[in-house]
Amino acid sequence: MKPISKEQLLEALNWRYATKRFDPNKKIPDDKWQTLERALILTPTSYGLQPYHFIVMTDREKRAELLAHSWNQQQVVDCSHFVVLTARTKMTEADVDKFVSRMIEVRKLPADAAQKEGSQLATYRGMMLGDVVHGSRGKIAHEWATRQTYIALGNLMTCAAVLGIDACPMEGIIPSEYDRVLNLEKTGYATVVACALGYRAESDKYASLPKVRFEASDLIRKI
Amino acid sequence: MKPISKEQLLEALNWRYATKRFDPNKKIPDDKWQTLERALILTPTSYGLQPYHFIVMTDREKRAELLAHSWNQQQVVDCSHFVVLTARTKMTEADVDKFVSRMIEVRKLPADAAQKEGSQLATYRGMMLGDVVHGSRGKIAHEWATRQTYIALGNLMTCAAVLGIDACPMEGIIPSEYDRVLNLEKTGYATVVACALGYRAESDKYASLPKVRFEASDLIRKI
Repeated sequence: MKPISKEQLLEALNWRYATKRFDPNKKIPDDKWQTLERALILTPTSYGLQPYHFIVMTDREKRAELLAHSWNQQQVVDCSHFVVLTARTKMTEADVDKFVSRMIEVRKLPADAAQKEGSQLATYRGMMLGDVVHGSRGKIAHEWATRQTYIALGNLMTCAAVLGIDACPMEGIIPSEYDRVLNLEKTGYATVVACALGYRAESDKYASLPKVRFEASDLIRKI
Repeated sequence: MKPISKEQLLEALNWRYATKRFDPNKKIPDDKWQTLERALILTPTSYGLQPYHFIVMTDREKRAELLAHSWNQQQVVDCSHFVVLTARTKMTEADVDKFVSRMIEVRKLPADAAQKEGSQLATYRGMMLGDVVHGSRGKIAHEWATRQTYIALGNLMTCAAVLGIDACPMEGIIPSEYDRVLNLEKTGYATVVACALGYRAESDKYASLPKVRFEASDLIRKI
């Protein structure tokens, strides 16, 4: 693996900012977008369970329907690709088994690998069930899934930055209205946050404002 | 800004995995660690409020005290740098004003920029107060802060990967015990998750397992 340089990473992270105005005429090229989608899919999650679903919107008319539920933030329609990040509303045994089946498929394990008592996969399945379904995380399953979705959001924004793509994370949306417009109500997923991606407009004065971060000593303690 | 190539990004994301065994003799060089800390500080957060605090532990004896509260996962002690991510337990007017003061300092605004009724900064301050302190997010302030902390976790893992540094996110910890060991109880911050960083041991067989992700069509819907 060929790492990037420290300078290149920091340059990208300093270049990025929460883009207020996107250039509506600039589209993310297909190959770059495919890369970002792949990056999103590769997000790490707790146990690997991926308790989320992403809606990628390029249709501007449909996006316009979301404007009123997004405090009229124009990024929703002006960006190239608008991603709605949704999280599982609860976790069931079926969710865990879907993932276990996928493990068996991808890693070419015996079909009954999770049924053999004491096997590694059976143990892993039991751990997941005892935690995110029947255990303490099961009680806050949607919130736990939301946290995983925020890992995806963080990953997505950083990946976009290193690829030279602008992004604006958006918590200022009305999730229940998004759910209604996007017909999510019976899917078992609910909107938690969104992210607009594309290219900054030259007129966006926010691009040149100095970043505001607390001092390192305010944010980090060393032991 | 010089973007990295699509191939280089995906190579890094495919190279990374939740490292189970770190080589305890390999340290992250100082300059690389400084870069990761800077990357962590540059994490995007809602309103820019940065409602978190990071504890970077290199002291192995202190880390050993956390083992019993981490299901004895050896990554806690074997990694090079162990980061405990903590989130604000509530949000107060003082939190918002601390950030407003920092904005004034960094952006060289007039000292009274937030006091002038109708000014941009006064409006922004009012929005933050009406949301994360007195509004709907104020009611779930710790959870909201936790979500921001998970953005930081996502950003940290991706940045580590592109720098060629291994990481293992750890939800399998007992936050209240971490708070006790780290004396967080009266700080207004509480442990939410941890991340071990360093270099994989050659013996870690998990490094070569195929990644398990659902099909793109299972994770992404296009509109």
